[in-house]
Amino acid sequence: MTFSIPQLIKNIRRKKSFLCVGLDPDLNLIPKYLLKTSDPVFEFNKLIIDYTQDLCVAYKPNLAFYEKLGPSGLESLKKTLDYISDEHFVIADAKRSDIFNSAKMYADTFYDYFNFDGVTISPYMGVDAVKPFMRENKVVVLLVVTSNKNAFEVQNIISHRGKPMYLELVEKTNNWATDRNMMFVVGATRLSEMSLIRENSPSHFFLVPGVGKQGGDLKKVCDHGFNSSCGLLVNMSRSILYAGTGKSFYEDSRSICLDIQKQMQKELINRNFL
Amino acid sequence: MTFSIPQLIKNIRRKKSFLCVGLDPDLNLIPKYLLKTSDPVFEFNKLIIDYTQDLCVAYKPNLAFYEKLGPSGLESLKKTLDYISDEHFVIADAKRSDIFNSAKMYADTFYDYFNFDGVTISPYMGVDAVKPFMRENKVVVLLVVTSNKNAFEVQNIISHRGKPMYLELVEKTNNWATDRNMMFVVGATRLSEMSLIRENSPSHFFLVPGVGKQGGDLKKVCDHGFNSSCGLLVNMSRSILYAGTGKSFYEDSRSICLDIQKQMQKELINRNFL
Repeated sequence: MTFSIPQLIKNIRRKKSFLCVGLDPDLNLIPKYLLKTSDPVFEFNKLIIDYTQDLCVAYKPNLAFYEKLGPSGLESLKKTLDYISDEHFVIADAKRSDIFNSAKMYADTFYDYFNFDGVTISPYMGVDAVKPFMRENKVVVLLVVTSNKNAFEVQNIISHRGKPMYLELVEKTNNWATDRNMMFVVGATRLSEMSLIRENSPSHFFLVPGVGKQGGDLKKVCDHGFNSSCGLLVNMSRSILYAGTGKSFYEDSRSICLDIQKQMQKELINRNFL
Repeated sequence: MTFSIPQLIKNIRRKKSFLCVGLDPDLNLIPKYLLKTSDPVFEFNKLIIDYTQDLCVAYKPNLAFYEKLGPSGLESLKKTLDYISDEHFVIADAKRSDIFNSAKMYADTFYDYFNFDGVTISPYMGVDAVKPFMRENKVVVLLVVTSNKNAFEVQNIISHRGKPMYLELVEKTNNWATDRNMMFVVGATRLSEMSLIRENSPSHFFLVPGVGKQGGDLKKVCDHGFNSSCGLLVNMSRSILYAGTGKSFYEDSRSICLDIQKQMQKELINRNFL
């Protein structure tokens, strides 16, 4: 099955969930007994996937966690991608930006070698750095407002037209992308920005990090970013992955996911999506 | 030997060169006979390094070219880093940007695992994404104005203070970095921007891509960016790597490098650095 935004919307409706699980395996945090297996990262991911796949619509591995482990980390990532079912939207959280043949090479790596459906891209180099990642059935996930504390220092610089940088950027994307091949990263801790971006881009999906450990709130995110197609993918990583530390850590992860899915279902019903 | 900017300046004086060679091995472009070896990428890099190391002060592998090859590409990169002598400044052209533990993981990968001296970083996420890469004896190489055609669309947005985005950014870095732990990427095709950045940051080094295939001119770059410590690292990749296609391609690469080194020596003399 090839990925598309309409398919994602169907999956959200069917699963009553707009959860994306961040697959960020940290060897210092995963249960100790897994370290004795031949591929601890893959074994960890596999159990997390087994116990969350019916409750989420997307997975998002952050490349930093795999690259840190050298060549074997990329092998664990490849096995993980092969293991995730086609019905999930799988995003390479790579925050890449490069041009010409370099960008094309990254795109080949993420799309052809790993078979990701989307990649997070940093916008500072302009459209030249985004276009090589735009392909049929693939989605560019552009950093617009991020959830980190000092993000505003750059992203909220006000332009001579009186608009913050991030909105100038969102407007520019209208020249070269649509709501079918582009999503925006909008941090859960940046609610006023989220409202302004939603006003400007009523139909784009937002990938929302920052709920959970970083302090974002699910209901508030929905208040500011929900649209008639849901329009939100809320990502959670650490609070799910490291919910438990024992042999049955995956049961604890599932229990957190189930709780989030129930909250999401409530929001979907309250907002007449279900 | 640990890297430092004063050491780099000494090396420029000794070698009469401020050349950085971009190590971007493309399996479609390297001589066919190398493809029969067990590690074509490393064999190619090794020959390029053997025949250019006395003529350049830095090497810059672009990660995209290695990641495209999967786990074995990272092995070739590791072998390449181990092969480059300590006297060269070695930059991971990774254009990364991430926060918290993810950025720290990238930093661990590039500095500890590969032993790079510097990493190119995209500034859009603000200081949170830069700080984890700031370490003793390491240099953050921040994207400021890039050499690609549409870079200006984002980088030259004028702020409410009447300053282009890239200058707002350069000014912000004064709060958290110095000319000893930060360089700026300034494209050779962006000369008026280069002058303005030089005015603002008289003592920072600029890493300058875009001379050669992209149309930048060495003398003009010196006219706009040279300072009393040289202050420039000019990167060239394709025009050196793929100067020849035969069995002795490395002789052709060396011949190009020698020509560039001579031009650089002339500029260094004309500007009273030598």
